[in-house]
Amino acid sequence: MRFATLPDGSPDGRLHLVSRDNTRCIPAQAAPTLQAALEGWDALSPALQAEYAALNQGGGQPFDPAAALAPLPRAWQWLDGSAFESHGDLMDAVFGFEKKEKTGRPLMYQGVSDRFLAPSAPARMPSEADGIDFEGEFGVICKATPMGVNGSAADHIALVVQINDWSLRKLAPVEMKTGFGWIQAKPPCSMAPVAVTPDELGAAWRDARVDLPLNVEWNGAAFGAPNGYHMAFGFDDLVRHAAYSRDLVPGTVIGSGTVSNSTFRQIGSACIAERRGIETLDEGAARTPFMSFGDEVRMECRAADGSALFGAIRQTVVAA
Amino acid sequence: MRFATLPDGSPDGRLHLVSRDNTRCIPAQAAPTLQAALEGWDALSPALQAEYAALNQGGGQPFDPAAALAPLPRAWQWLDGSAFESHGDLMDAVFGFEKKEKTGRPLMYQGVSDRFLAPSAPARMPSEADGIDFEGEFGVICKATPMGVNGSAADHIALVVQINDWSLRKLAPVEMKTGFGWIQAKPPCSMAPVAVTPDELGAAWRDARVDLPLNVEWNGAAFGAPNGYHMAFGFDDLVRHAAYSRDLVPGTVIGSGTVSNSTFRQIGSACIAERRGIETLDEGAARTPFMSFGDEVRMECRAADGSALFGAIRQTVVAA
Repeated sequence: MRFATLPDGSPDGRLHLVSRDNTRCIPAQAAPTLQAALEGWDALSPALQAEYAALNQGGGQPFDPAAALAPLPRAWQWLDGSAFESHGDLMDAVFGFEKKEKTGRPLMYQGVSDRFLAPSAPARMPSEADGIDFEGEFGVICKATPMGVNGSAADHIALVVQINDWSLRKLAPVEMKTGFGWIQAKPPCSMAPVAVTPDELGAAWRDARVDLPLNVEWNGAAFGAPNGYHMAFGFDDLVRHAAYSRDLVPGTVIGSGTVSNSTFRQIGSACIAERRGIETLDEGAARTPFMSFGDEVRMECRAADGSALFGAIRQTVVAA
Repeated sequence: MRFATLPDGSPDGRLHLVSRDNTRCIPAQAAPTLQAALEGWDALSPALQAEYAALNQGGGQPFDPAAALAPLPRAWQWLDGSAFESHGDLMDAVFGFEKKEKTGRPLMYQGVSDRFLAPSAPARMPSEADGIDFEGEFGVICKATPMGVNGSAADHIALVVQINDWSLRKLAPVEMKTGFGWIQAKPPCSMAPVAVTPDELGAAWRDARVDLPLNVEWNGAAFGAPNGYHMAFGFDDLVRHAAYSRDLVPGTVIGSGTVSNSTFRQIGSACIAERRGIETLDEGAARTPFMSFGDEVRMECRAADGSALFGAIRQTVVAA
């Protein structure tokens, strides 16, 4: 199934099913919002499946991804991992952090979740001096998951999404050194317009990872296309980690962290900080600047056959 | 004004006004839930004030604090500070963290907020081996606060609350060393039954701090009574810090961190970790164990004249 949320004046918007080619949509009858669908996921899925099958036969209205909200415009919980070791190792080296001992534990912080920006919403930032950066990620949205999980963690993953995790890089190491994680360095994220069930990914949903490249463009120029498969921990591991001492509320969003491949010198990066890190190691200093007001980032992951999947995030940075 | 939330089968419960002596209550007419009241705070306050004034004249039903939910049973955002330097300095010394440079920046992490446990709810924990600990705190609940605040941050504080921030101490330093903050080490918090507007504190609301002792008992024995005034940053500073790069959604809860005084050897502590830290420094090793299943913690802050204020938190630790 594919889901999008269109604005209706309410904070949660109106849930729509989207056709398999992302061109048509129809209001979901079984649930008014994605949050409601997630709260009753197992019971509501057959009805939603039937609505989706009917939509794929034809009908509905044209789907305009640029008019969509985030599929889940607000969530009770957003837990972001950092599962790509090539990114973490590089950041540790550049910021002079002690190289992390491999503990066998995923890295994860809790971020602001009372809003996920629409895929085409401007990103309001307090200052260019803070080192404004994007982070292209994949994520999953969970149905209810009890503390300790019980059984397969992957079975608690309802949806896969694509996320832009906005970051303020001058503040990030300052907050990280406290050990408390990030508050000021992590403004609200955005989500690509279409949330998909894992089966929509076909063979590209592999080991609870997205085995597809995430194409990132900055001001119209290609910036990177790292593949989502190279996570040291799959999303199932991240779900299990998150649920150790808490029940995961339906609609919990869990992120992969910036998509990164060890071939980043060839394949590029999904955030500016990584490119600056490579420059620092290779050339002694970073030369790529962070973003300026008016800059645009575009992120899109398409299926292996080139067909639309999550739709595109396309955001411009503006002064708050 | 004083508010409590009584169970009605819904996740947000039913908002009640509580009389000034905490003995009687009445369903709020101007808002069905505390979240709704906070979303319309400035517009709804006069009506709520009138209802509160009438209740203080008499009437209503008996208020049973033990039957109450958390005043805000779930919140879109929970940001916990660590504003008592006597606690932070001690923890740094004991855990061998480099003593934090005084940066002029408050410490703050984001924690699980999709539920705040009722004041008398059992605290479900995965294992006694994790070092189960309580943390007695004060907190504030904000009305809508725009990014950058504009004007007085204290004016965005709607309510003052008392919180028990459950912590798993064996996991806390492991997660802290990653720089990402805490996930597994911080299960859901609980809230004392009554949320009060700052004016209810009278002179004890001083410099956006609670100038009253928080009395903590563990299994019926006095454990500590540190005063809430000794914060290096007031709640207004914490609000401003939190709102640097995000709008604060109505109902954002901001915590003080464990209440702690530099006189902790005399006055005691609001968490076990602090007492163990003192023992480690003074005697070479911690001898006070963490909590066992079946243990009870009780926390209460009363007004200077001994009258009830937030009501008591009284929780038993149970196996999940």
